[in-house]
Amino acid sequence: MENSTTYTVVPGIPLINPGDDLPQIVLREMAAVGMALQDGDVVIFAQKVVSKSEGRLVPLDTVVPSARALEVAKVTEHDPRLDEVILRESNEVLKVRKGLLIVEQRTGFICANAGVDRSNIEPADGEIVVSLLPLDPDASARSLRDRLCALSGVRVAVLIIDTHGRAFRNGVVGTTIGVAGLLPLRDARGEADLFGFHLQHTIICTADEIAAGASMLMGQSGEGRPVIVVRGARYERGEGSVADIIRERALDLFRPEALPL
Amino acid sequence: MENSTTYTVVPGIPLINPGDDLPQIVLREMAAVGMALQDGDVVIFAQKVVSKSEGRLVPLDTVVPSARALEVAKVTEHDPRLDEVILRESNEVLKVRKGLLIVEQRTGFICANAGVDRSNIEPADGEIVVSLLPLDPDASARSLRDRLCALSGVRVAVLIIDTHGRAFRNGVVGTTIGVAGLLPLRDARGEADLFGFHLQHTIICTADEIAAGASMLMGQSGEGRPVIVVRGARYERGEGSVADIIRERALDLFRPEALPL
Repeated sequence: MENSTTYTVVPGIPLINPGDDLPQIVLREMAAVGMALQDGDVVIFAQKVVSKSEGRLVPLDTVVPSARALEVAKVTEHDPRLDEVILRESNEVLKVRKGLLIVEQRTGFICANAGVDRSNIEPADGEIVVSLLPLDPDASARSLRDRLCALSGVRVAVLIIDTHGRAFRNGVVGTTIGVAGLLPLRDARGEADLFGFHLQHTIICTADEIAAGASMLMGQSGEGRPVIVVRGARYERGEGSVADIIRERALDLFRPEALPL
Repeated sequence: MENSTTYTVVPGIPLINPGDDLPQIVLREMAAVGMALQDGDVVIFAQKVVSKSEGRLVPLDTVVPSARALEVAKVTEHDPRLDEVILRESNEVLKVRKGLLIVEQRTGFICANAGVDRSNIEPADGEIVVSLLPLDPDASARSLRDRLCALSGVRVAVLIIDTHGRAFRNGVVGTTIGVAGLLPLRDARGEADLFGFHLQHTIICTADEIAAGASMLMGQSGEGRPVIVVRGARYERGEGSVADIIRERALDLFRPEALPL
């Protein structure tokens, strides 16, 4: 079992543009400072660079807000075109407040503003460009993983992460939105404890624990540290999915009624 | 700014008993394997060893359940004496389900079963002994920090952590319950991003990100790895408190109505 886990920033990742080969860039920048991937490493990508490489960008001047977006924007005080983009990225709206739309994002998790963000996108002709989350974050993670493995010759896992707020607690934390090559949950129910009792119902979200550790070092997207390599993480290999982490609706004790979309 | 963060298990921590000098034990076991604390390290303690060293243990055969505990236990299917202990440790009850009481624990955070746990306590004469969270986890963290600093001569921060479930997502993650020597929240609102925009309202819960990273390596309390040393964490020094992390009731969008205590 691992006794030590190290999170390391891949330095020198340039601004990413649509079509960029992110795995190739990561391996190039690692090589430039003498880093190399090892079997079992977990490579963590901030969602923003994945979204940009996939061209998930929308100039707001191409968006016409719907009546619902106009209505919502009266509460959020957002640009109504931003709320239009958020609503298009959402399965359900849960809360509407000044500065905040809490939704079920199309992938199925609950988050603020459907992950749509306007920070850190190059202004083109002064127009505001927003980034959307990857269309299928697990597929993006698998694609990054496959390409990293093919180029490096070693087997790694990949997480795509974003920072999410939480119920009951202040502050955002790094949270998994896409998974490849690891099982996000570890079921410790069957493991005997030190005295031979069995632990109570305990399922650990390994992926979110790794995501949070990586996020601490990464900081926010404006800091230019969007890729972290984790060595010595405790995880189980396998083809997991972010869907494993999303709580089944019937078992969710805190989910509010949906509002009109 | 740190480019690398390493989490390391302190090996060989023995079973902890009431009155044990936890910092002295940690430093002794670190020295035995050639480890030494450095200025700026964060030392992470699992709540269970802190609770045991402080004697926060209750043999269930000393507990007489109240009428409310008997009523609650019909739903939880817990031993009613366990629910009595949980209710005594709670400010409010939020949800009652089979196997689960979600409460505001006396410290103010929302968690399952008020952190009361029966796993991994030495059975004495066959009686069931449960552990409670420290009475004042920040005070416990400060006491551990002061003693570690006095014995080692270096300045470190301390977190006491437990694993908590989350709304909307499956699996527990490592979560801060006590803080000394660091500010748990980092306010990134004023920091310019790569293009000179300002990030949107972003407060990062650094303490919970570090707690989750440490928990990943620690595993559950039955695994005998209750102390982790974190080197190279990004945090701001200061006298923080877990109270900084607890969301103000009026700002909590997901908090349900309290049930009778």
